[in-house]
Order: sequence, then structure tokens, then C-alpha cells
Amino acid sequence: MKTVALADCREFSDKGMTRVIVHDSAYFKCINFNLKAGQVFPVHSHKLEGELSIVVIEGTGEFLGDNDTAFAANTGDILISEIAEPHGVRATTDMRILVTIAPPI
Amino acid sequence: MKTVALADCREFSDKGMTRVIVHDSAYFKCINFNLKAGQVFPVHSHKLEGELSIVVIEGTGEFLGDNDTAFAANTGDILISEIAEPHGVRATTDMRILVTIAPPI
Repeated sequence: MKTVALADCREFSDKGMTRVIVHDSAYFKCINFNLKAGQVFPVHSHKLEGELSIVVIEGTGEFLGDNDTAFAANTGDILISEIAEPHGVRATTDMRILVTIAPPI
Repeated sequence: MKTVALADCREFSDKGMTRVIVHDSAYFKCINFNLKAGQVFPVHSHKLEGELSIVVIEGTGEFLGDNDTAFAANTGDILISEIAEPHGVRATTDMRILVTIAPPI
């Protein structure tokens, strides 16, 4: 049992989104990504079994999918996607997301 | 790929914490629990392999463990626990948590 204050993972960079691993085990991986306004987590996918969730913990932007699809991504919104399905994020304001991947990759 | 607005899962009850399933698949389960100030998610455990995360998405309280241990649980804090390890939550203010369990139980 451990606790992490996500506030301690809050670090933005002008060079691109930052990535702080919160937890990594045999069961799942949790990563906090921090994106400054305008930064993009490019759409990508992996040919692997499993799913991921993306919870917006701060700010506003868009979840991105295949073929230029976009969905509102406001604080408190959550995206569920297969790992093999194209997914990404675009930050409108400074934005922080918590990604959980199971099984971990 | 689907999105859920956790704001739509925000429902408190005087009778006890409420439970809204956000996602349930072969890979993980996500549940939003809503606790009014003073309500308790009793300490419990399951004799199963796996881990869970508890993210505080609103409010303040305590994460609970075995033998009356307690850890600060403020908005943005996350607890990682084995499913087999005793865990619970006590709400100081109205409080909302997002629990992710992998593999799902």
C-alpha cells in the first residue's frame, strides 16, 4: 500500500509534455502526463491486448482518435480505449492527465 | 473508445455511499464512489491476485488500512493497494473517488 500526491507530479516543460510514472507493477501502470497549452500527445497505438483509461485531472483539451476524431476532454472526463486503438490528447489549456494501462506495457 | 463525464456520476445519498460503474471489461473495472461527509467505505480485502488504485477526484478524507492506519486523502491523491490488502476510505468532506481494479473483480 502506498500513496502518491499527484500534485508532486505537476511539472510542465516548454519542450513538450512531461511524463511521471506513478506506479508500475505486473497488473497495471499509471503515468501522469503534463501538457502545456497547445502541446499534443500524438495519436498512437500498440498492437497489444489490453485497455487504458485517461482521466483529465486538470485543465481542458480534446481526446483524439483515428481519422481526426476529437472528443471534449475537460477535468473529470475519462476516456477508455483499447491499447490497439489509436488515441491521443491535445491540450487547450495547461492540462494534466492520469493514464492507467492494464496489463502494463 | 468511449468517454464518460465523471460529473454525471456525481450522486450523493444520506443512506450511504453511492457506487457508479464507469467501465467493466476483461482488463479492469472503474467505479466512482460518492461519499457524503462522515461516510465510510469500510476497510475490506479480497483473497485475489491483483491491485487497485483509488484516486480522490473531489473532497478530502483519509485512506484507511489495517490496524487503524490512515493516510491523508486529498483531491489529487492516489492510493495503490493490493486487492488482498485491507483498504478503505473515510470522507471528511463530501468526497468522490475513482477506483480502478485490475484484473477486475
